[in-house]
Amino acid sequence: MAVSTPGSEPDAEAVLLAARRAKDAAVGLAPLSRAHKDTALHAMADAVVARSGRVLEANEDDVARARAAGTPDALVDRLALSEARVSAMADGLRQVAGLPDPVGEVVRGSRLANGLELRQVRVPLGVVGIIYEARPNVTADAAGLCLKSGNAVLLRGSSSASSSNAAVVDVLAAALAGAGLPRDAVQLVPGSGREPVKHLMRARGLVDVLIPRGGAELIRSVVEESTVPVLETGVGNCHVYVDAGADLDMALAILLDAKTRRPSVCNAAETVLVHADVADAFLPRALDALADAGVTVHGDATVAAYGAQVRPANEEDWDTEYLSLDLAAAVVGSLDDAVAHIRRHGTGHTEAIVTGSAPAARRFVASVDAAAVMVNASTRFTDGEQFGFGAEIGISTQKLHARGPMGLPELTSTTWVVTGDGQVRG
Amino acid sequence: MAVSTPGSEPDAEAVLLAARRAKDAAVGLAPLSRAHKDTALHAMADAVVARSGRVLEANEDDVARARAAGTPDALVDRLALSEARVSAMADGLRQVAGLPDPVGEVVRGSRLANGLELRQVRVPLGVVGIIYEARPNVTADAAGLCLKSGNAVLLRGSSSASSSNAAVVDVLAAALAGAGLPRDAVQLVPGSGREPVKHLMRARGLVDVLIPRGGAELIRSVVEESTVPVLETGVGNCHVYVDAGADLDMALAILLDAKTRRPSVCNAAETVLVHADVADAFLPRALDALADAGVTVHGDATVAAYGAQVRPANEEDWDTEYLSLDLAAAVVGSLDDAVAHIRRHGTGHTEAIVTGSAPAARRFVASVDAAAVMVNASTRFTDGEQFGFGAEIGISTQKLHARGPMGLPELTSTTWVVTGDGQVRG
Repeated sequence: MAVSTPGSEPDAEAVLLAARRAKDAAVGLAPLSRAHKDTALHAMADAVVARSGRVLEANEDDVARARAAGTPDALVDRLALSEARVSAMADGLRQVAGLPDPVGEVVRGSRLANGLELRQVRVPLGVVGIIYEARPNVTADAAGLCLKSGNAVLLRGSSSASSSNAAVVDVLAAALAGAGLPRDAVQLVPGSGREPVKHLMRARGLVDVLIPRGGAELIRSVVEESTVPVLETGVGNCHVYVDAGADLDMALAILLDAKTRRPSVCNAAETVLVHADVADAFLPRALDALADAGVTVHGDATVAAYGAQVRPANEEDWDTEYLSLDLAAAVVGSLDDAVAHIRRHGTGHTEAIVTGSAPAARRFVASVDAAAVMVNASTRFTDGEQFGFGAEIGISTQKLHARGPMGLPELTSTTWVVTGDGQVRG
Repeated sequence: MAVSTPGSEPDAEAVLLAARRAKDAAVGLAPLSRAHKDTALHAMADAVVARSGRVLEANEDDVARARAAGTPDALVDRLALSEARVSAMADGLRQVAGLPDPVGEVVRGSRLANGLELRQVRVPLGVVGIIYEARPNVTADAAGLCLKSGNAVLLRGSSSASSSNAAVVDVLAAALAGAGLPRDAVQLVPGSGREPVKHLMRARGLVDVLIPRGGAELIRSVVEESTVPVLETGVGNCHVYVDAGADLDMALAILLDAKTRRPSVCNAAETVLVHADVADAFLPRALDALADAGVTVHGDATVAAYGAQVRPANEEDWDTEYLSLDLAAAVVGSLDDAVAHIRRHGTGHTEAIVTGSAPAARRFVASVDAAAVMVNASTRFTDGEQFGFGAEIGISTQKLHARGPMGLPELTSTTWVVTGDGQVRG
């Protein structure tokens, strides 16, 4: 199980030192009042705007490096910052300041027969590690959410954004210190390459939770290699099931929204399943509309019979999170067949049913096993903002701790505070 | 990271087959009504009593094997069953039947501006793996709690109790089948030795959570080697801090209760920290009372000056969960010193302060980082029964998902059910 390799020790020392400093900083963050944290968040927002020149300059380095490496334009665009994007980072920090403080919330409580007063109170997790890809705005978002929830954060962005991330963290940490908070509360994981991440993943006792945000491969490797607890996020092989009793106009609107509005996100639909009873009425219209929207359909033999443009689907298509204008499509004989397909191929993110039948909706909800189940609504609604959380740190697709969009309360743990006047069990 | 070794494949196949059958069984358990589950729990209780002869016979084999291996009497006693103990197992199952069903509980909900109805609903985790030591009554307890929370369970007891556990599971699974439920909902992990546990720990996608219950070494190995999410339980290096403002009679009563009533459990106290201001008044009395109760005190130099019977403590003593009539003891200069000691050596289980000062209590609660903090009460109250949960599956000392005693709700996850009439995000 050892991950250290010859020559890796300096990395390990630097990572563990950063984690120790984060842990020390976390002690000071836990008892902070909401007012103090909000003041710091506004100071961070002001600093990002005031020092946007520094951030944009660093970003230009990253962009130049990406272009020199032949990075596709779409990825360069995700990486590139502008005055407007820096300003949006600051707005994000101010928005978090406006959210209620989760720390100190009493989740439940009671008085026991022996007079003991029992309260379950939200407390920060401590030190949160976030491993993410591409967009540098995540750096500010994650720092803001962790600070508001009383956590110190260790940030590990992609190497393509390293200069931008360093500049943003530099600006944020200085603003924190200016507001009288420990600057170690927001740090980058030091070092480059894979080794530092490995050390982070083994820093049990120093790091309380790791949140990987990014592609399937990144998430898989963190989940498999980490001994620090992980909040798994985001892989979404989401289905839209069009039931026999569906309003087909509604089904088409939902399918187009779920597939085409923003195909690169985890709550986009990747497969449509159509009940055989409505295949004749639905598929010709749907295939035309999808083609008009630029969607390539990978269908089973039944679907292919409805359109010459349908490509034959293979087993892999059912398991693929395309994140593009591609859609797998199959005709199913029953709701139970749809559920069986979803249980086999889904990733437990979001599953939607379009139906006019209340029993069918109830059965679908009870049988698919997912973070979110949509009845007559687009899969795209699985989102912290949409759910009214104000902000989100990611969408959990695991079953422990949090499932679905994670807001500020999901960045906390709880402590049982038991107050008595000398009670013993005897 | 591979765990398979030459010759281990048959084990792996058997374990994965059992896990697959558990997963299939779990599909059927999720939508069951409370009435159906309670009927099954009563049938299981009746079967345990009706077939106690079979269970006791199997237990005699285990006991004979343990005696032949020279197992200490205390451990043999933990292993041994009697009519009374079998009857207590049945009572435990009936008690679980009497508890509310956590599945289906709406945790929170709202209506969004666009008319979507949002509900966060408790659902079973799916397949729960439990790895535990010694006492065969855990087999029935865990099976009952998992069934009530709609989960299938894979049980892995210690090899010393293998015959007893096999008999209990045989009786329970037959009773389940008799009540019309899938008998695969309660299974033993097949095979012997360490290999099957390793396969269980790598069965991502089939097993939803592992709960290790037992000694520190067992828990550490599961936490480090498992790729299945783990609910870490139970290691308790618990402290009692006697503050300058403490009622010393209360402090002594709490200390004796926490240390001596049941020294082998995780919520027993292992270290006492005494504020220097009350050392003169407290320690001579406390050392006498502890000696009378048969407790060996391992003290720092200051404590040793108060009693010839005090053994010198070394660094290891501060980190030891004795689980015996041993107690580490130190004098601290301030509440902050006590907190620093606890943050350094505690395991995040239960920490107690005895104090008359409200600000001191508040500061201690805010600064120690534990699943439970007791103010003027014994550490022994950290317990599902004591907290009014009716039953517990263990005490979590981790920060994700659940912290402190875990009852039925802690054996569930949630799903967001979003109901609309055709909403799209656009």
